[in-house]
Amino acid sequence: MTSNRGVAYKGPGEVEVVDLDYPTYELQDGPGVNPANVGRKLPHAAILKVVTTNICGSDQHMVRGRTTAPAGLILGHEITGEVVEVGPGVEFIQPGDLCSVPFNISCGRCVNCKTGRTEICLNVNPDRPGSAYGYVDMGGWVGGQAEYVLVPYADWNLLRFPDKDQALEKILDLTMLSDIFPTGFHGAVSAGVKPGSSVYIAGAGPVGLAAAVGAQLLGASVVIVADMQQERLDAARAFGCETVNVGEGDPREGIAKILGREEVDCGVDAVGFEAKGHGHGAKEAPATVLNSLMDITKAGGALGIPGLYVTGDPGGVDAAAQEGSLSLRLGLGWAKALSFTTGQCPVMRYHRQLMEAILHDRVQIAKAVNATPISLDDAPRGYAEFDSGVAKKFVIDPHNTTGLVAA
Amino acid sequence: MTSNRGVAYKGPGEVEVVDLDYPTYELQDGPGVNPANVGRKLPHAAILKVVTTNICGSDQHMVRGRTTAPAGLILGHEITGEVVEVGPGVEFIQPGDLCSVPFNISCGRCVNCKTGRTEICLNVNPDRPGSAYGYVDMGGWVGGQAEYVLVPYADWNLLRFPDKDQALEKILDLTMLSDIFPTGFHGAVSAGVKPGSSVYIAGAGPVGLAAAVGAQLLGASVVIVADMQQERLDAARAFGCETVNVGEGDPREGIAKILGREEVDCGVDAVGFEAKGHGHGAKEAPATVLNSLMDITKAGGALGIPGLYVTGDPGGVDAAAQEGSLSLRLGLGWAKALSFTTGQCPVMRYHRQLMEAILHDRVQIAKAVNATPISLDDAPRGYAEFDSGVAKKFVIDPHNTTGLVAA
Amino acid sequence: MTSNRGVAYKGPGEVEVVDLDYPTYELQDGPGVNPANVGRKLPHAAILKVVTTNICGSDQHMVRGRTTAPAGLILGHEITGEVVEVGPGVEFIQPGDLCSVPFNISCGRCVNCKTGRTEICLNVNPDRPGSAYGYVDMGGWVGGQAEYVLVPYADWNLLRFPDKDQALEKILDLTMLSDIFPTGFHGAVSAGVKPGSSVYIAGAGPVGLAAAVGAQLLGASVVIVADMQQERLDAARAFGCETVNVGEGDPREGIAKILGREEVDCGVDAVGFEAKGHGHGAKEAPATVLNSLMDITKAGGALGIPGLYVTGDPGGVDAAAQEGSLSLRLGLGWAKALSFTTGQCPVMRYHRQLMEAILHDRVQIAKAVNATPISLDDAPRGYAEFDSGVAKKFVIDPHNTTGLVAA
Amino acid sequence: MTSNRGVAYKGPGEVEVVDLDYPTYELQDGPGVNPANVGRKLPHAAILKVVTTNICGSDQHMVRGRTTAPAGLILGHEITGEVVEVGPGVEFIQPGDLCSVPFNISCGRCVNCKTGRTEICLNVNPDRPGSAYGYVDMGGWVGGQAEYVLVPYADWNLLRFPDKDQALEKILDLTMLSDIFPTGFHGAVSAGVKPGSSVYIAGAGPVGLAAAVGAQLLGASVVIVADMQQERLDAARAFGCETVNVGEGDPREGIAKILGREEVDCGVDAVGFEAKGHGHGAKEAPATVLNSLMDITKAGGALGIPGLYVTGDPGGVDAAAQEGSLSLRLGLGWAKALSFTTGQCPVMRYHRQLMEAILHDRVQIAKAVNATPISLDDAPRGYAEFDSGVAKKFVIDPHNTTGLVAA
Repeated sequence: MTSNRGVAYKGPGEVEVVDLDYPTYELQDGPGVNPANVGRKLPHAAILKVVTTNICGSDQHMVRGRTTAPAGLILGHEITGEVVEVGPGVEFIQPGDLCSVPFNISCGRCVNCKTGRTEICLNVNPDRPGSAYGYVDMGGWVGGQAEYVLVPYADWNLLRFPDKDQALEKILDLTMLSDIFPTGFHGAVSAGVKPGSSVYIAGAGPVGLAAAVGAQLLGASVVIVADMQQERLDAARAFGCETVNVGEGDPREGIAKILGREEVDCGVDAVGFEAKGHGHGAKEAPATVLNSLMDITKAGGALGIPGLYVTGDPGGVDAAAQEGSLSLRLGLGWAKALSFTTGQCPVMRYHRQLMEAILHDRVQIAKAVNATPISLDDAPRGYAEFDSGVAKKFVIDPHNTTGLVAA
Repeated sequence: MTSNRGVAYKGPGEVEVVDLDYPTYELQDGPGVNPANVGRKLPHAAILKVVTTNICGSDQHMVRGRTTAPAGLILGHEITGEVVEVGPGVEFIQPGDLCSVPFNISCGRCVNCKTGRTEICLNVNPDRPGSAYGYVDMGGWVGGQAEYVLVPYADWNLLRFPDKDQALEKILDLTMLSDIFPTGFHGAVSAGVKPGSSVYIAGAGPVGLAAAVGAQLLGASVVIVADMQQERLDAARAFGCETVNVGEGDPREGIAKILGREEVDCGVDAVGFEAKGHGHGAKEAPATVLNSLMDITKAGGALGIPGLYVTGDPGGVDAAAQEGSLSLRLGLGWAKALSFTTGQCPVMRYHRQLMEAILHDRVQIAKAVNATPISLDDAPRGYAEFDSGVAKKFVIDPHNTTGLVAA
Repeated sequence: MTSNRGVAYKGPGEVEVVDLDYPTYELQDGPGVNPANVGRKLPHAAILKVVTTNICGSDQHMVRGRTTAPAGLILGHEITGEVVEVGPGVEFIQPGDLCSVPFNISCGRCVNCKTGRTEICLNVNPDRPGSAYGYVDMGGWVGGQAEYVLVPYADWNLLRFPDKDQALEKILDLTMLSDIFPTGFHGAVSAGVKPGSSVYIAGAGPVGLAAAVGAQLLGASVVIVADMQQERLDAARAFGCETVNVGEGDPREGIAKILGREEVDCGVDAVGFEAKGHGHGAKEAPATVLNSLMDITKAGGALGIPGLYVTGDPGGVDAAAQEGSLSLRLGLGWAKALSFTTGQCPVMRYHRQLMEAILHDRVQIAKAVNATPISLDDAPRGYAEFDSGVAKKFVIDPHNTTGLVAA
Repeated sequence: MTSNRGVAYKGPGEVEVVDLDYPTYELQDGPGVNPANVGRKLPHAAILKVVTTNICGSDQHMVRGRTTAPAGLILGHEITGEVVEVGPGVEFIQPGDLCSVPFNISCGRCVNCKTGRTEICLNVNPDRPGSAYGYVDMGGWVGGQAEYVLVPYADWNLLRFPDKDQALEKILDLTMLSDIFPTGFHGAVSAGVKPGSSVYIAGAGPVGLAAAVGAQLLGASVVIVADMQQERLDAARAFGCETVNVGEGDPREGIAKILGREEVDCGVDAVGFEAKGHGHGAKEAPATVLNSLMDITKAGGALGIPGLYVTGDPGGVDAAAQEGSLSLRLGLGWAKALSFTTGQCPVMRYHRQLMEAILHDRVQIAKAVNATPISLDDAPRGYAEFDSGVAKKFVIDPHNTTGLVAA
């Protein structure tokens, strides 16, 4: 039997590489596994040797102790891998296929999947619609920051790359298809970005930068990225974005300097519930990004909200924030006839077209987000560095398949 | 020179029929007229003899003193009338035409009008995008609860009824085209109502009932209307809706009894910022309707929000409400991947198709909202009765053109 | 082993009820089975006891000898049935479920299925995208005009009715969900029918009448159905349609009498390639319906084309028709900026919402198309009668589950 | 009174620069002016000093004698100019504004204009919906290949450039906003081009190249342009397109070499009714492009058809072609579930966003189509050269405003 190792959440601020079981075609009990899912048969699953698996900002919410994630939870929902074996119910995916795994697990049989709403699949999470690997309250599917991972409903979920060698050459770009590139792109799409649009993206973390790349791919004429860290803003400027440092004051002024007017066509929230206020020494202020976006988005505009908002946040600044309530200027939004799109990105809606854009050199997403390969053993360091706000997207390569990490 | 009379707001709780100037092709100074609009030339305008003009719930916000409307403001934005003369710039509309007037005034020349976003026209209100007749902070266009009214950009704004005699027979239905029928329909459309949908409409006032009729026209399989007044709910039942009395407890139970499940496909907020909590003796609680809709709309659903939310409300329950901020459970909405559409209805997007539905007897909107004709002199009584919550939609007929009111 | 019987095509003008094998979880060789599909494993399939299975106009194309269908082909693609057993790969569908079967077979795993284009599934027909039960050149899936039928990819394909008893009460309506109701509805949707639209539907066969019901459900203000047989037109009038007898001359005149203008908003072709010209004694003229629709649909309108056009027609009137080429007035269509939507209806896109409309009594599709139950042994008579043009939709009930046919 | 000169059609193969009247606010009689339009009052018009006005392929149809255009018709519908005076009904456009003129004239008051369908405006052409400057059977609006031109409904039609100096620097790009850039873009949009799409564009004339630029702006991963002239194909390669020379055989092979498969996602017909067959010495074959596109576009794809098809073509190859009928393989299209969008591009739907793309350097349309400025007096030479198939787009600059033409 093949051995397996993966990254486990151990407690606030602490992750560790641990031994874990090699996957089987039945969901086993373990930290964070919903009892209703224990023993679930998975003949439709494939087992993947993980090629790359990225650390995500939403992993950080757990690691910071802002959730109820149990100790021992195996992390990781951004997975790219090679199929090593398939269950008896798998028909089209074959061992040897190199594939991207959408972070949202979905069944491909329920009414939501049938209409492309894989982010709210009804059959994978006993608690609520929607699921993900290695995430608290998502059903208990084992995370993929590991050597091997099981992917259920493999024929449905997996996106096979058409040419394996070509794919390995672009693997640092393609690894972003499992989450942040589609997620950022979804933010841009749901903000109504079209050829010629001006776009304001709050947050220059990996999702914000991916939204910026996505907005450019959609033909935006001007993409303005906002953040409080100059290093992140520099990363955005490096691929043609304009920037606004919201640590230095009201973003309207920054926008006016760039556009000659104070409002943009489209607004994207790539920050989410851990937002901070504007200006020096800003404190956590969960509604600040959305209220700011309502202010600076033109009447009739749309807000795409890929940034995560949660139903419960033990570390929230007040009782309202702890239950996921925000004080929003809806009166202003209504007067401007804005619309709002929330929720997880349904990765499957976009990953194939974005793969085509990568394979034909239309986008350089790895460079934009500063993809930085590390070994599995280096994962704890990656978590710590990412938490400090460095302008890097850490890509764990457990088997050094890319040849880019130290043995 | 023809005389003119109309309904003026005099102060909280008080309206009065007063003499006013007959319209001219230049915007005159007066109560509530924006200085930047005074003297504006209007060769593109038509003057209409008002046939019917309805009292609207949003008029009540002013009359209750919940706005900064000045005394003397002539009210009325729901207008149907016969063209009596046209300015030199009018080419297609002719004297004698019987027309519906969209409540949102728009120019037909700006970028928003060109894309059908007439609710946020850039050229009619010096304060902000969007305008309306007889409304505070909307530029100062004189209201239409009067004998005569001026309609700017007449070729653009007016919807001519194809046959005058036929139209007069259905005038109590057609009079709803100026606002509430399109507004309710817009709520249903933006909530994603399609053939087979289940729909929950919060509020059984005229807009809520119009949303219900609209949802039926869109093919909804089940339309559930919620309110705290049984008389209003009875009105909804009379044309085939299911109902939930939110004065009696959690709407999830009521929905479950009707549908066999606790969530609907589509949610419509036809209440707005003066919302009250659920249960007996409920107090004003501005976020309660939206939070409830997030709770009872299925994951992946959409919320249409035709109910008015304002940027400033001197009578709000607290400082947040007074500036139009609401404590919304966005974390819940995000987890359910909901989307939200706000703003005035762009009446022109819908009025023609709804006119066709009326003229071909596909809908009975007048009956659904209990259209009740009254004379101009009776307008103050109409305001008072409507404010008491009666299940009636008052239709002022200043010249007794319909023959339905006492002389 | 359970016995099985079904309706076989024997040659032009001839069908017969024959014994056939009870289904197994492997596709067997037989008349019309594509060699590449023989031996295909089907662990994802369910076996259904057929409750109702309708005779379709497209079956007639084969029976009339207008195709290359081989003798012995088991017919039938409009299937409703009760699941009696499921393969080992089926997870959610269970024995006892009463289900509608979309006529287009699809895998639920390919790129087209993932975007709802089940009518062009890539994995079920070795010849081309798209498949159907019991149809020539569609891969060889055994038809369902039989006692028992196999449905592959059961979790994906089957629509379970929520309440079996309720469903059996409405079974003559629900049986139309497998094909003609969605197909007609798709025609209306792709013709752009919206609340208030005027619609012209060419052809008053079952699909045309279903399109008319669909147009009404979508809120059309006027639905005009055209045909050359008065009995069929009477059927359309019976549920509120206007009609034009194209055997009596130019449809523009008929339309003008109804609408007061000669053009409609939306055009639907529910006839297809066996179209005849207008007027008495009209001959087959395959382009006549489409050219007529281009003439009578307003500039900017859309044409929905659910009527079948084929790539090869041995019985075509000339060499062009035999290869599926039509002499179309595209110059006229272009000048009017028309758009055209062709192809099989993707049933899964619509069947659930139409089921809701049926279950909540929003439509009476069985009555509209004159659903007429017959026994399996009566199928040959049904084919013959339907071919004569009677205004009936024959519903085969092989086990007399409905209790509506003679034993 | 200011003098005026313009390009007149004199007969097949012959154009000439002639004196003509300076525009007035009333439509005068003249060659090609519809009698019903003579004397029409135009207080809503502006008079423009023409800055640039391009020769279009559709002008060539007239000049080649393929239409019923009368001798003396002033040509030119691709117009950019500076407003020199406005009629009394113009409110927002002012003298001095530098503006792009959409080639389709529209009123901004009719039901089609209100829904953005300016290509089929109901109020500008007594013959049929839709109009254009300087074109046969389009109402008689005087062409703009002249020193001065009148633009009706100026507030509605004109697109003002935000900064005049900046605009003059990019004038060779901006001049393409009046027709070919939006027209090509419309072809790409209506073919369903999205990020990641593969696109095949038939025809490498200016509209085809503009469609290619448009497809790139929409995020296409691969744009394949097909033509029979290598010089034109080289022009496409110069800005990153792949190419197929259809003079050398079946395009499927060329596509396969590029993509590894024989079908594309999206097809654009930028050729129209004067299409020729494939291979050496190909003759005119009006259906060949559309039939080829149906062959090479994947099942479920869409065809955008900006190429012009006409209702009457005196020079057509046979009786069918002369009335605008084509022998189309609709059976094939239906089997592949294709959709088709025809008609003039509604320029106003796109020109503003494409202007933003130009002003922010997202596209280099002038370079792509090889914009070549010439003087008004050189127009006859431009017509002759363009007719020979050179890879140039001639831009007439009547006043040498650009400083790019010999005096």
